[in-house]
Amino acid sequence: MRTAFHEQLDALTHSIGDMCGLAGIAMQRATEALLEADVALAETVISENNLAIQAAETESDAFTLLALQAPVATDLRAVVSSLRNVADVDRMRALALHVAKTTRRRHPAHAIPDDVKDYFAEMGRIAVNIGYNAKDVVLSADPDKAAKLDDDDDAMDELHRHLFTVVMDRQWPHSVATAVDVTLLSRYYERFADHAVEIGRRVIFQATGTPIM
Amino acid sequence: MRTAFHEQLDALTHSIGDMCGLAGIAMQRATEALLEADVALAETVISENNLAIQAAETESDAFTLLALQAPVATDLRAVVSSLRNVADVDRMRALALHVAKTTRRRHPAHAIPDDVKDYFAEMGRIAVNIGYNAKDVVLSADPDKAAKLDDDDDAMDELHRHLFTVVMDRQWPHSVATAVDVTLLSRYYERFADHAVEIGRRVIFQATGTPIM
Repeated sequence: MRTAFHEQLDALTHSIGDMCGLAGIAMQRATEALLEADVALAETVISENNLAIQAAETESDAFTLLALQAPVATDLRAVVSSLRNVADVDRMRALALHVAKTTRRRHPAHAIPDDVKDYFAEMGRIAVNIGYNAKDVVLSADPDKAAKLDDDDDAMDELHRHLFTVVMDRQWPHSVATAVDVTLLSRYYERFADHAVEIGRRVIFQATGTPIM
Repeated sequence: MRTAFHEQLDALTHSIGDMCGLAGIAMQRATEALLEADVALAETVISENNLAIQAAETESDAFTLLALQAPVATDLRAVVSSLRNVADVDRMRALALHVAKTTRRRHPAHAIPDDVKDYFAEMGRIAVNIGYNAKDVVLSADPDKAAKLDDDDDAMDELHRHLFTVVMDRQWPHSVATAVDVTLLSRYYERFADHAVEIGRRVIFQATGTPIM
């Protein structure tokens, strides 16, 4: 009975790790669509629903585990953590979709001007990285790997703040509408990283009992 | 034992209802601070931590209930729902804080220009309303009341979209920086309403088994 529980808990953990990686890939593809104003790729990101289905299934599995095994103490906390992790990863997926939808909304125009493309390319790179690092943390529960996640998040925050100053600058040569798009897009990436960090903190807290600030 | 469980579940539900109302009030006060560029009031909203403490306590109570009573079926779903509702209401609190922080960041200047004040006054009015309506839904589990919540959300979305067109308009007479502030602020209100609706849907689904679209 106990072994069956832990096998199922492992399966949950693996699924959540997978989804972290997949959310990063979704954000990477959404970024590529954004940078190239590639509406076909944006549509693919939007219509792709494997991750949403996997999230719903994993949530349902976590729920079944709670209902059938009535775990206590550490085991209970692990399952409840899984439920929360699924919610965070599902939000990461939604944020990648937001990026893809912005690309679609502005097509055939580019949503972002050439001179901020490098920032978004870098945010996309960090996003896919953070997805893989979150997967690593979920699968290993290794605090050192969680620290890497925080580094990614710091880099993302730094880019987000910097983009803010670029847009807010009196010399901003583009329209207000473009400034608004850039601002919201940048926020989607920042929130994406926040959710990954949230997952990492929860996993480490679960494994070690030590909250990471 | 069963009675004790249901008493504790009722206490959870009441606490979540309370917090919905309090989150609405926090957003109302943040809105007042925003409209008047009242930094003292903004500081009060930012430093006030009763709601955060109550959320942590309610979460802990829900957890204890799971651990000690190992509920099954409907009861289990109710407790897990409560955990999710706490997460949503806590995010509503954070969004009210975001509004207050924007006010503080721009002080002594006004974060929003006079000609969009009415929109934000209205968004603040809807936010406090949606907080009370969410409370009503949590306490009554009445689908008719959940429909009111959806009306509030539609009104909020409509204002959010409209503000978008105002800001995006070529005639926008203010700076890009102001457009950026207005855009992000408007998004905070929109997300605030989304979380309230999420709570309402979860309560109704829990009570009736019928998902609301």
